[in-house]
Amino acid sequence: MKAPLDFYFDFSSPYGYLAAEKIGPLAARHGRTVTWRPMLLGVAFKATGGAPLPTIPLKGDYSKRDFLRSARFHGVAFRLPDPFPVSTVAACRAFYGSPEERRVPLAKALYRAYFADNVNIAEADNVLRIAASVGCKPDLNKQAVKDKTRAEVDSAQPFWGIDRFDQLERWLREPF
Amino acid sequence: MKAPLDFYFDFSSPYGYLAAEKIGPLAARHGRTVTWRPMLLGVAFKATGGAPLPTIPLKGDYSKRDFLRSARFHGVAFRLPDPFPVSTVAACRAFYGSPEERRVPLAKALYRAYFADNVNIAEADNVLRIAASVGCKPDLNKQAVKDKTRAEVDSAQPFWGIDRFDQLERWLREPF
Repeated sequence: MKAPLDFYFDFSSPYGYLAAEKIGPLAARHGRTVTWRPMLLGVAFKATGGAPLPTIPLKGDYSKRDFLRSARFHGVAFRLPDPFPVSTVAACRAFYGSPEERRVPLAKALYRAYFADNVNIAEADNVLRIAASVGCKPDLNKQAVKDKTRAEVDSAQPFWGIDRFDQLERWLREPF
Repeated sequence: MKAPLDFYFDFSSPYGYLAAEKIGPLAARHGRTVTWRPMLLGVAFKATGGAPLPTIPLKGDYSKRDFLRSARFHGVAFRLPDPFPVSTVAACRAFYGSPEERRVPLAKALYRAYFADNVNIAEADNVLRIAASVGCKPDLNKQAVKDKTRAEVDSAQPFWGIDRFDQLERWLREPF
């Protein structure tokens, strides 16, 4: 039995969204399953001194072009949402507050709502409506859900980003 | 006649080095030539508020792993030089102070000296020795060479990085 792939992502990341649409089939091609692990990029930024791409001079404008072109390259429906980026605490808690077998459909629904349909997933009402559409009714204020969300944020990932999927695919075939 | 590809890079960038080994064949597959344009990433960092990857918490350690794995993925000889990163003003000036027809061999020689053979290309003596090995004798202190180097730094590039070469290749076949 091969180990599952750990997939860390933030619900406000365009690259995370593209990866979310691609990682399942990639893993399946190599007989792997995926453990989905949404986290909060803002907390990671505090550790790295980073900031959301759109706020960075030059890189901000470039990143918007790269989001759109990368989405076309991967054949994924995408529009840059407004507002962008947003807090994803509510989305993250909804994920960890839902039954395990419903989490992946929920994650995909949240991502598509935000990046294809321009629904603001920073708003708890929107998150709960999307959750209901895939049969989930999470309690976003439950302490255990808050704690689980916080605990996931500190983890690390050995392959960063959709732009390493070619390396990941070869690695799964044969580590190099 | 198709337009040449503009290839912007810093001599201290591992990803630039990998790209330098790959961009010629990629362009040739699509009937293009490449205009090599070394620049100084440190100056770009001043505009974007960026910093060299190895200095950034978490990302620094991760980037070293990514450099090595990406080099193996692309089949390019690589060792992380010490010191790293270094100033590439001397290397950049040597490039612009050499005859056009010798610049690409010089750029490849500088990159390989630094990233395969651990020669410190921040030192003018080393740069001049490498230049001599490919038939160049640039004057690193000539004002026209300094001015040309400075002028190249402000340019922009529409495809950032070796990790967009798959997109670049498809774009050259047919823009999407």
